[in-house]
Amino acid sequence: MNIPTVNNLKRVVIIGAGFSGLQVAKKLRKDKFQVVLVDKNNYHTFQPLLYQVATAGLEPDSIAHSIRNIIKKTKNFFFRLANVHYINTEKQKIYTNVGYLSYDHLIVATGSITNYFGNKNIEYFSFPMKSIPEALNIRSLILQDFESALLKKDDQERKRLMTFVIVGGGPTGVELAGALAEMKKYVLPHDYPDLDIQLMNIHLLQATSRLLDGMSKKSSEQAYKNLKELGVNIWLNCLVKDYDGQIVFMEKNKKIESDNVIWAAGVKGALIKGFLKEDIEHHRILVDNYLRAIRYKNIFAIGDVAYMNSYPSGPPMTAPPAIQQGNYLAKNFNLFSSKKNIIKPFVYKNIGSMATIGRNKAVCDFTFFKLKGFLAWIVWMVVHLVSLVGFRNRVIALTNWIIQYFHYNKSVRLIIRPFHRKKKNYLKKS
Amino acid sequence: MNIPTVNNLKRVVIIGAGFSGLQVAKKLRKDKFQVVLVDKNNYHTFQPLLYQVATAGLEPDSIAHSIRNIIKKTKNFFFRLANVHYINTEKQKIYTNVGYLSYDHLIVATGSITNYFGNKNIEYFSFPMKSIPEALNIRSLILQDFESALLKKDDQERKRLMTFVIVGGGPTGVELAGALAEMKKYVLPHDYPDLDIQLMNIHLLQATSRLLDGMSKKSSEQAYKNLKELGVNIWLNCLVKDYDGQIVFMEKNKKIESDNVIWAAGVKGALIKGFLKEDIEHHRILVDNYLRAIRYKNIFAIGDVAYMNSYPSGPPMTAPPAIQQGNYLAKNFNLFSSKKNIIKPFVYKNIGSMATIGRNKAVCDFTFFKLKGFLAWIVWMVVHLVSLVGFRNRVIALTNWIIQYFHYNKSVRLIIRPFHRKKKNYLKKS
Repeated sequence: MNIPTVNNLKRVVIIGAGFSGLQVAKKLRKDKFQVVLVDKNNYHTFQPLLYQVATAGLEPDSIAHSIRNIIKKTKNFFFRLANVHYINTEKQKIYTNVGYLSYDHLIVATGSITNYFGNKNIEYFSFPMKSIPEALNIRSLILQDFESALLKKDDQERKRLMTFVIVGGGPTGVELAGALAEMKKYVLPHDYPDLDIQLMNIHLLQATSRLLDGMSKKSSEQAYKNLKELGVNIWLNCLVKDYDGQIVFMEKNKKIESDNVIWAAGVKGALIKGFLKEDIEHHRILVDNYLRAIRYKNIFAIGDVAYMNSYPSGPPMTAPPAIQQGNYLAKNFNLFSSKKNIIKPFVYKNIGSMATIGRNKAVCDFTFFKLKGFLAWIVWMVVHLVSLVGFRNRVIALTNWIIQYFHYNKSVRLIIRPFHRKKKNYLKKS
Repeated sequence: MNIPTVNNLKRVVIIGAGFSGLQVAKKLRKDKFQVVLVDKNNYHTFQPLLYQVATAGLEPDSIAHSIRNIIKKTKNFFFRLANVHYINTEKQKIYTNVGYLSYDHLIVATGSITNYFGNKNIEYFSFPMKSIPEALNIRSLILQDFESALLKKDDQERKRLMTFVIVGGGPTGVELAGALAEMKKYVLPHDYPDLDIQLMNIHLLQATSRLLDGMSKKSSEQAYKNLKELGVNIWLNCLVKDYDGQIVFMEKNKKIESDNVIWAAGVKGALIKGFLKEDIEHHRILVDNYLRAIRYKNIFAIGDVAYMNSYPSGPPMTAPPAIQQGNYLAKNFNLFSSKKNIIKPFVYKNIGSMATIGRNKAVCDFTFFKLKGFLAWIVWMVVHLVSLVGFRNRVIALTNWIIQYFHYNKSVRLIIRPFHRKKKNYLKKS
């Protein structure tokens, strides 16, 4: 990659333009460092709202923001669209699909990928929701299912098409289940008057004893209650064993017939080749309290891909710690460049967590208080709007939400690129 | 396809939910007819704004509108997502990828497809822009080109990536050339500060002696002048002979090296199998003055696919005649159902035509007056906004335009589904 080298300026290469990578890239002093940001997409994805893209609430373009638009004409700040295949930690080079690049300092901010816990059938047949194309696949899938259901003569086939199983009762699963239930309530009966929408079933499967396991018990109960009211079938303490594309197999011989399994049950670090076994823990890069990859002088990891051993279990794999880590690391780099002492170890400040369940319904846990219902829902919306990158995206998202609120509608139920369902030619016993 | 049959109600099947199909479907009396609308997409596309999707000005979702949202719960009005493969005019049935359907009356409103005039090389290597996925391909193409250009060491290769050739100087070609020129002027220099944007070349090739051949001479000259000012290279009286993926071959041994040829040089009717040779003229369905396919009692054709012989050259293949024909046909059907006399032959009312060239620049030809410049641009915007289907789409498009106007920006320059360029393995002498 032809990036001009500048005398006396050390080059910091950042892999990944998610929450942490973007944050550190923006905050690093470009008079002290040459910053090269590398990502496989030319846009930053606001992942917390992917579920709204999947359920036809928002167009994909309003939760994506052009990385070059963020960088604009900043001096010594470069972006390269590339897939990083390998890091040579000795030669200090990254190797990508468009050439290699040497670094003085490397910041790995590659985020996380869907974790199928080794089950190849589930990986093959279920639908992940970690990227915009994946969310668009789910949007197409839902709409194509209903178009197909209309044409089926066999009741069982029709029911299978109209049954949605969401595995994972964290914020993603809860929000997706809520949005689907609202589609069932407000949108689909109008779109498919000649279909019995009561045949539509939404199942939410959670491995532990409560939904939103990372939040307070009160919020878990509230989410459970709200989803129940919306007609979601909630299965607690429920482990999925296998899925063959038509039947979800659970423990104790329980089964659900469904053509649509959305897998939101776990993530793992998006690792790049080049690290040794001892650098990795829990499928993430092991970092010290200064976010430096252990054993390396000039490699750092932040966000979902970084694993902090010092913590009991480390900060959660969500946006707030990622942003805090990006900020922290930039500050350290900037201090270091001014030959000042670097600050104290990174400590994650839990600013709270929240999940929305549907219209007028959300739960928020903050340090000193908790919210539920309408007020929580307003707080959830404001926080998400403000966090969206770019003025345009905020305005468009808000406009969509206002119109939907008054119209009881989901406007973007468009199958723009039809999704082709995978054939059952893969099936393996796992 | 299982559509319930209703006693005493004749079934009207409409193929295509473009301007004409949607219009006739909406206006037909559902107490007198059972209406079945069939389209290969579940959305209506507002084609006049495709060029803005291609040039990152609008998200695809704001020029598409869910067909089911239009129909809502209207009784005796059905939509089916299907590709029609064949019409059996004797058995009065259409055959689709999801089954067959019988009709009492058939309205063919399939629109038009890109016309490559038989040149297979051009068809293979150039980019059409008749649908939303095609416009998104062009959006990705432009952005991927610039990302690639950054990495090229060879000047010729870089220049070829940054050269855009638009073939066809009608409204589509003119609007696309203007929008690309504005990207070059306002957006790309910020996005690619380490690239010499002056290497970017935009060529507009027109077969006849003037741009916007269907408009007044004054408007042609104005468009020519405005595009020249924006730096577009305009080639008049220029016929493209071939394109091998890298070089555009024109008459008199002229050549342009370019990786990007966008083909807006012509359209032809989107025909369906089942008609006889004598039913077709100029690759469109020959209709009488009442829009009835000649030789058939109960088959009609409207919009781009319909060819009216009685006219010197028939109404142009644009939205206004399509909408007028949809309206006219619905009125005739409704009168017929009330056993009233059908109205007089269809006459196209030319309400004028317009094209925008860029920021503050457009041309409008109306019957009694012509506009150019800022006022024409405002008129162009209002007409297009009002014509967009759906309140949400209007609000979102307007919001985008306002933000772009003040920010000199194109917000949605996102490569959401990367486009994979076709390899040069196809090349044939044509």
